[in-house]
Amino acid sequence: MKTAVVLLSGGLDSATCLFLAKAQGFQCVALSFSYGQRHQHELVAAREVARSAGVADHRVVSIDLRAIGGSALTADLAVPRHDDVSQLGTGIPVTYVPARNTVFLGVALGLAEVVGADDLFIGVNAVDYSGYPDCRPEFIAAFERLANLATRAAVEGRRLTVHAPLSNLTKADIIRAGLKVGVDYSLTHSCYDPSPDGGACGHCDSCLLRRKGFEEAGVPDPTRYA
Amino acid sequence: MKTAVVLLSGGLDSATCLFLAKAQGFQCVALSFSYGQRHQHELVAAREVARSAGVADHRVVSIDLRAIGGSALTADLAVPRHDDVSQLGTGIPVTYVPARNTVFLGVALGLAEVVGADDLFIGVNAVDYSGYPDCRPEFIAAFERLANLATRAAVEGRRLTVHAPLSNLTKADIIRAGLKVGVDYSLTHSCYDPSPDGGACGHCDSCLLRRKGFEEAGVPDPTRYA
Repeated sequence: MKTAVVLLSGGLDSATCLFLAKAQGFQCVALSFSYGQRHQHELVAAREVARSAGVADHRVVSIDLRAIGGSALTADLAVPRHDDVSQLGTGIPVTYVPARNTVFLGVALGLAEVVGADDLFIGVNAVDYSGYPDCRPEFIAAFERLANLATRAAVEGRRLTVHAPLSNLTKADIIRAGLKVGVDYSLTHSCYDPSPDGGACGHCDSCLLRRKGFEEAGVPDPTRYA
Repeated sequence: MKTAVVLLSGGLDSATCLFLAKAQGFQCVALSFSYGQRHQHELVAAREVARSAGVADHRVVSIDLRAIGGSALTADLAVPRHDDVSQLGTGIPVTYVPARNTVFLGVALGLAEVVGADDLFIGVNAVDYSGYPDCRPEFIAAFERLANLATRAAVEGRRLTVHAPLSNLTKADIIRAGLKVGVDYSLTHSCYDPSPDGGACGHCDSCLLRRKGFEEAGVPDPTRYA
């Protein structure tokens, strides 16, 4: 059984990605980050999603990205709220965390080397997404190229593959694909700015994209809204 | 005055790199990591080196690479000791930290975006070095390519450059270059396995390469040995 390292934020996309990796026959090591994000609800969700997938090895790595800031998720900046998905901006929003996927994939690469995995999974999406530059397919391809120069495994001739199975799917497609492989979306957390008890705000970019996905997929939305 | 982010471990190479960046006219933001390394002496050295270079902004970012392990610097593995530099192995040694430079450059990239820097400096060397795959010029070139796809700055058409000015220098060349631009090597710390008071062991790969460098450069070695 081949081992894969799967980045798991606790959101809808990464949960789907984990279950897709599992469905492809990988033994999955899940990797989450306590990076100074606005709330810990997503880490609780990540643990529950990992458990529901039968993941035996789930690492949570601490990294203080607040020492850098520059994002509404890692500095004292407000999360934008909108009435509906048509109001989402076209530029890169303030919730973008500078270089986050570069850092997270870097740590995943290190973990892959330690656990002997030749496969990384990341649930980035470039259709119904927030316009983050490090979610684009060309970024993922460049990271894979870097990864194959960066480690002992690369020098020894092993080839690492970065899988981004959600890249070209709409949010509705992701939900349909996830339901087929057993994702329980009630365990996932997407909201950037939840209430203290973890209820979703329903108005941030992430909530709006998630709600639109469930609507378009024609399946009940299990999100607990504040 | 252009701003650059400079990775600063507190060792001989990164100190030289910082002073070379400064000599090129950059206003330098220094970046160090508390990553679960074996000792904190190098962070003390980093602070002193940054101060000696007149750096006004020195960030120390915490990241727990012990959650990954896989290296004598981040797990309970012994640091190899040798009598002289001729005994250094030819493979990748156990002091190699999986994907460390990918992670560090990733954080540096995020910081560059936040402080508006288009230049990163890293003191990697591929001549008198320990054979780490992520110190090779092809790795640095691949990271620069990645960086130019990863961030808001890239999307907005700004170009990021990764400078590795020590890449093709011998350790003696590095020391000579550093002395010309004002590095005080007595402030730097290279040893992987120092005594509790920070005295260098004189027998790890890093001590042996450093000592050889001072000998070949024909300048007094200011290292305080245990």
